[in-house]
Amino acid sequence: MRIVVTGGFGFLGQQVTDALLARRTLCGAPVDRLLLADRRVPAAAPVADHPLVDVVQGDLSERLDDVFRQPVDVVIHLASAVSAECESDFDLGMSANLDTTRALLDAARAQSAAGGPTPRVVFSSSIAVYGSDPAAPLPPVVDEWTLPTPQSSYGMQKRVCEQLIAEYTRRGFVDGRVARLMTVAVRPGEPNAAASGFLSGIIREPLSGLAATCPVDPGLRVALASPRRTVEGILRITEAVRGSGPGALEGGLPVNLPGLTVTVAGMLRRVAGDAVADLVTVAPDPAVEAIVGSWPASFDGARATALGLRPDDSFESVVKAYIEDHPEAIATGTTGP
Amino acid sequence: MRIVVTGGFGFLGQQVTDALLARRTLCGAPVDRLLLADRRVPAAAPVADHPLVDVVQGDLSERLDDVFRQPVDVVIHLASAVSAECESDFDLGMSANLDTTRALLDAARAQSAAGGPTPRVVFSSSIAVYGSDPAAPLPPVVDEWTLPTPQSSYGMQKRVCEQLIAEYTRRGFVDGRVARLMTVAVRPGEPNAAASGFLSGIIREPLSGLAATCPVDPGLRVALASPRRTVEGILRITEAVRGSGPGALEGGLPVNLPGLTVTVAGMLRRVAGDAVADLVTVAPDPAVEAIVGSWPASFDGARATALGLRPDDSFESVVKAYIEDHPEAIATGTTGP
Repeated sequence: MRIVVTGGFGFLGQQVTDALLARRTLCGAPVDRLLLADRRVPAAAPVADHPLVDVVQGDLSERLDDVFRQPVDVVIHLASAVSAECESDFDLGMSANLDTTRALLDAARAQSAAGGPTPRVVFSSSIAVYGSDPAAPLPPVVDEWTLPTPQSSYGMQKRVCEQLIAEYTRRGFVDGRVARLMTVAVRPGEPNAAASGFLSGIIREPLSGLAATCPVDPGLRVALASPRRTVEGILRITEAVRGSGPGALEGGLPVNLPGLTVTVAGMLRRVAGDAVADLVTVAPDPAVEAIVGSWPASFDGARATALGLRPDDSFESVVKAYIEDHPEAIATGTTGP
Repeated sequence: MRIVVTGGFGFLGQQVTDALLARRTLCGAPVDRLLLADRRVPAAAPVADHPLVDVVQGDLSERLDDVFRQPVDVVIHLASAVSAECESDFDLGMSANLDTTRALLDAARAQSAAGGPTPRVVFSSSIAVYGSDPAAPLPPVVDEWTLPTPQSSYGMQKRVCEQLIAEYTRRGFVDGRVARLMTVAVRPGEPNAAASGFLSGIIREPLSGLAATCPVDPGLRVALASPRRTVEGILRITEAVRGSGPGALEGGLPVNLPGLTVTVAGMLRRVAGDAVADLVTVAPDPAVEAIVGSWPASFDGARATALGLRPDDSFESVVKAYIEDHPEAIATGTTGP
């Protein structure tokens, strides 16, 4: 089978790629070709030379002909502008998130309309679809039947894409699936423009001996998932069969991936002791608080559980996995939780 | 104030126009200019010669420069492709409903961004946003907090536009409001391509002595509103103040206009006696049943009630009003309910 991963050189894209190349099968069929599409391809990207891997570089909406030149069986659509940049540049977010996803869906639809396989399209949505509208405050515990009233442009764009995918699926144009991602932490590397980026930064930077800023009240509750659990969830939803009953996907409803509910203060306490936590300065930023504070922190995970998914065991285990996976990023003398 | 009505020469557009020209005020200000935008302008359209009325004819997305050449205070956006045509021609619906509404919102946003007034944009949505997804069946009674899982392309497009409007409003680009219309019956004149068109036809045609076809099981329950009540609802939502408390619009939630719940069989019985009802032949059409049968029939109207709106008193009163408003369409000897 031929698989496309958009945003394939992003952090999650690389994790998904590594997992697919390690497994070598998906949905019970061998991974024959894996096409990574991304705006930027790093100069040093060993995976680009892997014998199963093809690379398409550039603006996805302009490269769809190349992506669909050979029949595509599965698209894992991770490419996205992130929350803070969508808030600061509305048109960028509409183009990168809404228009590009629609163009991708239309390319997939053109393939099935021309008699090719009906592509399975897996969309990485976000808990940012939820937010407390003044007339529709969030309930204490959120599930997939909770009305999403996004309070960010990013969240609105994700929600609109979810509905396009449900409809393209209902009409038989594609076999669409939606995984709503929790905030993924701990992300390695440089900070990105996501409003939630600090939820990695306040752990990652102190562990490497650097200072970090926490732009929200430490009492804020958030829902997190480790990169490992997130990739597991994306692939599980990719492989889920359509139908009814446990473990099957029915209808057009997204699946909220499992989230671990923690407070920011609790995250800081559990990192590596006071010496590391002392590297974090709390300096609330209203723009960040408005976005991240609008997201729910507690989920009823019944739909994810039915797919065999579960949240991380504890925040300690999340940090421990980060330290295991990124020994190069840990300062000498830091022992972790 | 300068008001734009899109779809201004459609049935509802003409009703809204008549109401505005009769009132001569909106939102406490005089109606200075009323611009009717429509793809088609009938040859005989006396209102086009009214001294307060301007006309812009053509595809709305191509005529927005003309629509916004003078500052616009209020847009009542009624132009839309209807349900059955969106189902039979997916791209037409996406263009006419989604792309055109987005272009309209961007033109309104450009006006406010350039220092002009922030337009009040009133969007006519539909109960077609609701539908029974296999994983999210509709509850017996629907309200604005019920998760919309549309089961038609038309419903998806309306729902997506609702969310664009909520977001453009949250960001201060426009002052958007969404009125979700019930099936409007009895519509006069020729049948249109709406899947729900028969809900007017099975009354209108027998009353004028013609045969009609009922394409659904007569046991189907539907939610209706008369044209009078529908126009009243649109204008009430247009005039509602922003804020909290009774009669004010808060946040981004739509308002479901009040609906009268009836069965199709009940509608037929109440028209004009058996002689008229005998003109109706029941011949179920699965395509129509799939669309109209997916819509809810019972609503909790608390938000509409808070705006002072109420459903029609009875289906008899709906038919009576139709006969009063359209004496020319009633066959001799038909007395009504």
